[in-house]
Amino acid sequence: MAVFSFLSPVFIAIICLLIVIILQNKRGNEKVKKRKEKTDKESRPWVDEDLQDSTEVPADEDGKDEDMDEDDISHIPFSPLRHDEQDMVKRSKEFYEMLNQRRSVRFISNESVSREVIDNIIRAAGTSPSGAHTEPWTFVVVQDPEVKHKIREIIEEEEEINYRKRMGDKWVNDLKKLRTNWIKEYLDTAPYLILIFKQIYGILSSDRKKTHYYNEISVSIACGILLAAIQYAGLVTVTTTPLNCGPRLRVLLERPVNEKLLMLLPVGYPNKDATVPDLKRKPLEDIMVVV
Amino acid sequence: MAVFSFLSPVFIAIICLLIVIILQNKRGNEKVKKRKEKTDKESRPWVDEDLQDSTEVPADEDGKDEDMDEDDISHIPFSPLRHDEQDMVKRSKEFYEMLNQRRSVRFISNESVSREVIDNIIRAAGTSPSGAHTEPWTFVVVQDPEVKHKIREIIEEEEEINYRKRMGDKWVNDLKKLRTNWIKEYLDTAPYLILIFKQIYGILSSDRKKTHYYNEISVSIACGILLAAIQYAGLVTVTTTPLNCGPRLRVLLERPVNEKLLMLLPVGYPNKDATVPDLKRKPLEDIMVVV
Repeated sequence: MAVFSFLSPVFIAIICLLIVIILQNKRGNEKVKKRKEKTDKESRPWVDEDLQDSTEVPADEDGKDEDMDEDDISHIPFSPLRHDEQDMVKRSKEFYEMLNQRRSVRFISNESVSREVIDNIIRAAGTSPSGAHTEPWTFVVVQDPEVKHKIREIIEEEEEINYRKRMGDKWVNDLKKLRTNWIKEYLDTAPYLILIFKQIYGILSSDRKKTHYYNEISVSIACGILLAAIQYAGLVTVTTTPLNCGPRLRVLLERPVNEKLLMLLPVGYPNKDATVPDLKRKPLEDIMVVV
Repeated sequence: MAVFSFLSPVFIAIICLLIVIILQNKRGNEKVKKRKEKTDKESRPWVDEDLQDSTEVPADEDGKDEDMDEDDISHIPFSPLRHDEQDMVKRSKEFYEMLNQRRSVRFISNESVSREVIDNIIRAAGTSPSGAHTEPWTFVVVQDPEVKHKIREIIEEEEEINYRKRMGDKWVNDLKKLRTNWIKEYLDTAPYLILIFKQIYGILSSDRKKTHYYNEISVSIACGILLAAIQYAGLVTVTTTPLNCGPRLRVLLERPVNEKLLMLLPVGYPNKDATVPDLKRKPLEDIMVVV
């Protein structure tokens, strides 16, 4: 007991030391946590909280899909239509000139447009390539005026918060030249809103999940083809990515949980007094390098 | 001292307890770390280590760009060409039918193709919309046979590792139906390889960085338009995303550090004996929902 008694101050010192270690550990953890939150959220303000590249890998993958018969798919000869060289140069030029007339238009008239045209432009988008031919897209065409108005309410509510709080001065400043803000009249006036959802995984008939490789890139490519089809038909649109509206719009449109909103395109004719910012495109030499 | 002596066993108990708390804290941290590593890497094997959605926000942003004069850009009337309704239906149908002939072709002939056609299809891609009109793309056109062969060596080397190790049985199995592997003859034979780089930030003349919002989505849309232009001209390609080859190809092609490889398209005529897998596309009712 004499030894213990002699050591008592040492015990107390050790206790103090251990308490200090515990407290420092805690503070360190909090710092790491804060830093993580910062890199995850604050530094990438335009990344939709719901979007990300969120391809999901099913946990129960066993290397075999149900559509195993596709492994034995036959390969067939392919010899497409061939244009002679002069015709090819002419066609490539006329396609460029047609697309170069395209502008993002934020003033869309309420004139009606034939549904057949909409069906065809979505058929065109559906010809896009996709990772492992998974075709991970859903095009929701909204023509019901009430649903369009509900979409407008959701988007304007979130966009006002985006402009005022989430986006930051820098981004709002970068958009000034386009004169955009959170009032989106075209969501009511355009005869059609096309909401493009990416499927972050597929669902097989047995309720098992199917991996959708590169789904965001694939669906973005399909949107590019959709834009070309809209222009070729002679309609206008504006490419929008409603920031942080995805979850609410998904619920409104009753889409399943494997679908996430990537883009929204209002489609129609331009208003009679539509204007566009007088922007120029980069010349070829600024976007192409030849090796 | 008598009191201390009496308390000695209590001190020892407290010391033991504090040591246990410290050890548990440590073990907990390690678990969190491991779990984080797992979600970050293991569960997303196809996400190129170099790719991600890596839009970079300059640290020294001050809310003002040099091209401030763009804020005062004028807005001009916009009244595009208008087709009558019947003509519009016809055009939308013919555009779909033209694109529906497109197939991903892995057998490309070494026949030469006019550079003028390549220039025009890249001009067409350059008409794409982009976040805040940043045009964050660089199209590198490779026609030099030696450089093409070096590209092939890099890609085949990495792709063999991808197929054997990185991709996993499941993914390799999903690609079986396309009969793809790591031998890419088209990288030598195609008269042109177009490598599409996304600029994760821009560089202003004062060497300051410029934010490129949504650059991956924007460049993917441009690739969609490029694919449509290639098809319209009458050439073929296959959409490839060379996994983990980005950094080596960027160095080979002497591209700056703000550019990351997104896609590679070999462009040319199909071989005379080219085949394609006999795949079907989803019908309209499987990709479109009308509300």
